[in-house]
This record gives sequence, structure tokens and C-alpha cells, in this order.
Amino acid sequence: MALYGERGFENTTVAEIAERAGLTERTFFRHFADKREVLFAGSNELQERLVSTVAGAPADASPLDAVAAGIEDLGDVLPDRPETSRARQAIIAASAELQERELIKLASLSAALAATLRERGLSAPAASLTAEIGMAVFRTAFERWIDETDGRDFAEHVREALGEVRALAASG
Amino acid sequence: MALYGERGFENTTVAEIAERAGLTERTFFRHFADKREVLFAGSNELQERLVSTVAGAPADASPLDAVAAGIEDLGDVLPDRPETSRARQAIIAASAELQERELIKLASLSAALAATLRERGLSAPAASLTAEIGMAVFRTAFERWIDETDGRDFAEHVREALGEVRALAASG
Repeated sequence: MALYGERGFENTTVAEIAERAGLTERTFFRHFADKREVLFAGSNELQERLVSTVAGAPADASPLDAVAAGIEDLGDVLPDRPETSRARQAIIAASAELQERELIKLASLSAALAATLRERGLSAPAASLTAEIGMAVFRTAFERWIDETDGRDFAEHVREALGEVRALAASG
Repeated sequence: MALYGERGFENTTVAEIAERAGLTERTFFRHFADKREVLFAGSNELQERLVSTVAGAPADASPLDAVAAGIEDLGDVLPDRPETSRARQAIIAASAELQERELIKLASLSAALAATLRERGLSAPAASLTAEIGMAVFRTAFERWIDETDGRDFAEHVREALGEVRALAASG
């Protein structure tokens, strides 16, 4: 990832990435489908973690509380320091191709979350809507966590964003 | 668009689209950046309409009410019949390339909505979050409008989804 930051994603070849990582190109492709995937290596883990926490929330938790618990918990699978995620987002922001991949991953996360909520007994329409709200909380908390330098951890940002959703929905 | 439905997006060339529309290829490219754009020709209008309605909402409307009014109003710029949108979504669902373009357009809509809310005096973090909730309402209402055959119009689906957001946020 450091190479993408130094030279830009488009200007970095798989051969260079593999060399920096001490891998052959063949080994690289055993781990990653293409060079974009290097940046999204953590997203499967993120999705599995979210799904398992939401599935395991108490049966009497409200759908939004179950989702919020799952999102708060993602702090454990995100990098320890927001600077790492900030550097990654800067690389993604500089490339239309990477932005597309990022959006696909987020859409997949939302679909997995909705499927988990349906398994908890929510109707399909309610599950999709709750998942979308959860994604709004996730994206907002994530952006604030990487942008703000006040040292609050990811879970605090999630709780704050969720409180704002409740306040927004209650107003007007 | 009918051609994409008949033969699939990947198997349709710009020459064929232009011929069906009675245009030369050169004229086609004066109207559309590429063949994907044919399917997204309405998205600028959608965005302009949303931005102008939200900007013009009464100053004392809550942020979420302003957004909801803007989304309800989009019924006027969507196709008259949900079948048209359903056919379009089926073409998009069959192509990863088109799904990416669709996600980019939705992200752009969300960003434009957030910018409009900031101009209404909302702080940047609150504006982003409100825009994301608005997008959740939009996507949910749109999906239900094209999937359900009970003849309810788009605005009714928007009001229903918004009511559910309020109920979800109030629970738990």
C-alpha cells in the first residue's frame, strides 16, 4: 500500500508490489485477484465480523440496536490507527477505478447485513431499510474517525452517529 | 434501451444503438460519453431536481423533512410507469460495469444532497449523515416502487419508508 501512496495506484505494477512484499508475481496472484484487491483485503473479514455480531445479538434487541452493536464491534477489525485508514482512503479517492471497487464492497456489506436481519425474522423491506441506515451510520462514523484527530475511537463515533440518526428521525 | 434488454448490454454496440435511434455514431457521442451513459441520461435531471427542491424547502423545515420533500418530488422526474424503471434495473443488474456506474451516480446524488444541506446551514457531519439517510429512503422507496405491483405511486413509497425510518430510530 505504501507504493500506491508514493507513486499513485495507476503507476504501480503488480511486479513492483510483489517485489516490495518479497513475493513472486505468481504468489501475489494466489492471494489477490488483481492489484485493486490489495486495498480491500480486509473487507471480507469486516463483513464476516459484522454478520456474526448482528446474528448473535440478543433476540430481543431492536433491529437498529443489533446493527449498531455489529458496527461498533468493527473497531476491532479496522486498523489500530486511523492514519492507516486515512492513507488508504486517500489512495482510493485518487482513482475512479478504486472508488468503484470501494462502492461495490460497501453495497456487498449492506446486502450481507440485510440478509442477516432477515434471518433474525425481519421482513425483507424492513431488513433492507435497516441495513441502509446501518451503512449510513458506518460510513459517517468511519469518515469522522479518519478525519478527526481528537483520538476518540471508532466505537465512540458509531454511538455518536447513531444518536444523531435517532435525533434526526425524531425531529420535524 | 430496448436493445440492451433484447441482447444484453455487453452484446450491443454503439453502432447498433445509434442505428436504432436514427443517429450517426458521431451524433451519439455528442449526446453520451459512452454507451453506459444511455442508461443514466436521467440522473443529472434527478440530481438537479432533488437539489432545487431541498434548497427551496421552508427555512423552518427539519433537515429530514426537507430531504423527504425533495425525494417525494422525484416521482415527477422518474418514468411514469414503474415497468420502465424495472426493465432498466434488470439491465443494470446483469452487468458489473453498469452496477459500478449506478453506484457512482448514487454516491454523486448523496454528495450533492449533503452539499445542499450544508448551504441550508447544517454542519458538515450532520449534512452527510442526513443525506445518507435520505439515500436509504430513496433506494428503499425506489426498489419497492418497481417491485410491487399494487399501483401505489413513488411518493407514497417515500412516505412509507420515511415513517419506517422514524419508527426504527425510535425503537430500542
